[in-house]
Amino acid sequence: MLQPFIHVLNAQRIVLASGSPRRKQILENIGLKIEVIPSTFEENLDKTKLSPADYVVQTATHKTEEVAKRLAAGGTLPDLIIGADTVVSQGQEIFEKPKDKDDAVRILSQLSNCSHTVYTGVVLFVPSTSLLMSKGSQVLGGTYRCTSFVDSTAVHMANLPQDVIKAYIETGEPMDKAGAYGIQAIGGTLVQKINGDYFNVMGFPLPRFAQEIASLYGEKDLK
Amino acid sequence: MLQPFIHVLNAQRIVLASGSPRRKQILENIGLKIEVIPSTFEENLDKTKLSPADYVVQTATHKTEEVAKRLAAGGTLPDLIIGADTVVSQGQEIFEKPKDKDDAVRILSQLSNCSHTVYTGVVLFVPSTSLLMSKGSQVLGGTYRCTSFVDSTAVHMANLPQDVIKAYIETGEPMDKAGAYGIQAIGGTLVQKINGDYFNVMGFPLPRFAQEIASLYGEKDLK
Repeated sequence: MLQPFIHVLNAQRIVLASGSPRRKQILENIGLKIEVIPSTFEENLDKTKLSPADYVVQTATHKTEEVAKRLAAGGTLPDLIIGADTVVSQGQEIFEKPKDKDDAVRILSQLSNCSHTVYTGVVLFVPSTSLLMSKGSQVLGGTYRCTSFVDSTAVHMANLPQDVIKAYIETGEPMDKAGAYGIQAIGGTLVQKINGDYFNVMGFPLPRFAQEIASLYGEKDLK
Repeated sequence: MLQPFIHVLNAQRIVLASGSPRRKQILENIGLKIEVIPSTFEENLDKTKLSPADYVVQTATHKTEEVAKRLAAGGTLPDLIIGADTVVSQGQEIFEKPKDKDDAVRILSQLSNCSHTVYTGVVLFVPSTSLLMSKGSQVLGGTYRCTSFVDSTAVHMANLPQDVIKAYIETGEPMDKAGAYGIQAIGGTLVQKINGDYFNVMGFPLPRFAQEIASLYGEKDLK
């Protein structure tokens, strides 16, 4: 979707405000050149007071804002800053990364043989001086304009016996991932089916991102 | 799902009878050690006389059989031979790899803004002398037992303008792929949503494969 103006995008400075190697890989796989500047924002919003969709957008906004402020203080304004946050939700509960192995056992036992929903919030910051994005809310004293969206994907887990859960945790794969699994590697054997966007489950809703960027850059006829 | 006995699997000789780099990558990503021996079977079954599900299983069987025969003639019997075939189906039509760029334009234009189904047939050959797989049909004069399955995933494509289709084809990505797109890289920006298994769309239904192997190896208590 981005191919007709990928050369325009790659002439710009694009910053990914996330240290997730999966997000970097997804964006590089489509030929985008990006610079990774992980946010130091502590993910501490009150999950009991926010819906999963609000939680990921607000967390992604804080992450992006922290990086944008740091860069603005250093006197540089990238052409685009991308922030994202992903959680897994089941019933009233929101799961992030497991705290330790016992927490990973608890989460995976709860997800076993059931459906859950993966939410990713994505936030795009564009300098206010840019031709792009005439709409969107002003942030950081007018330095940036901001737009955001959320994508959700339903995931149905297979029935996971305890020996499977324990052997999976021993691989080390679950520990840095929301919901304690990674669909793109070994965890892919645990997922029975998904309904929605696969990349969203990996942590970055690529098709929706491509549509948003295409509409931002396409509208301005920058081809 | 395979972690509890991955060491058993990796002590065996496992052959993938397919030259697809995606299938190799999916299996290696879960920690399996495999040897790739691409089949030379010409994919020429009559698509007008077979359902997509029958077509992929029959083609996968012929591919696996060709590799098994070659290895048996050389005097070696691997512990497991895996064959697979993938097609994209829409209405009465079955799409394989595009013949040339014009064919890729035709296929992608037809898939644009519509749903289609991806079918992958997987065939497993295990030596008849193995403790595994007491069921399944005998093939190759009793040298191997064979079991097979099909998985299907519904895919909904975004609306693809002609300039997007042409720029995508210029990346070279569509040319070696059934349905003229690869969901795992640039083509991922073209897909709006899927319903089912993502890996099946990439060419190998990983969760279903893991279940089949777990039931073969688990039943025999080879842990």
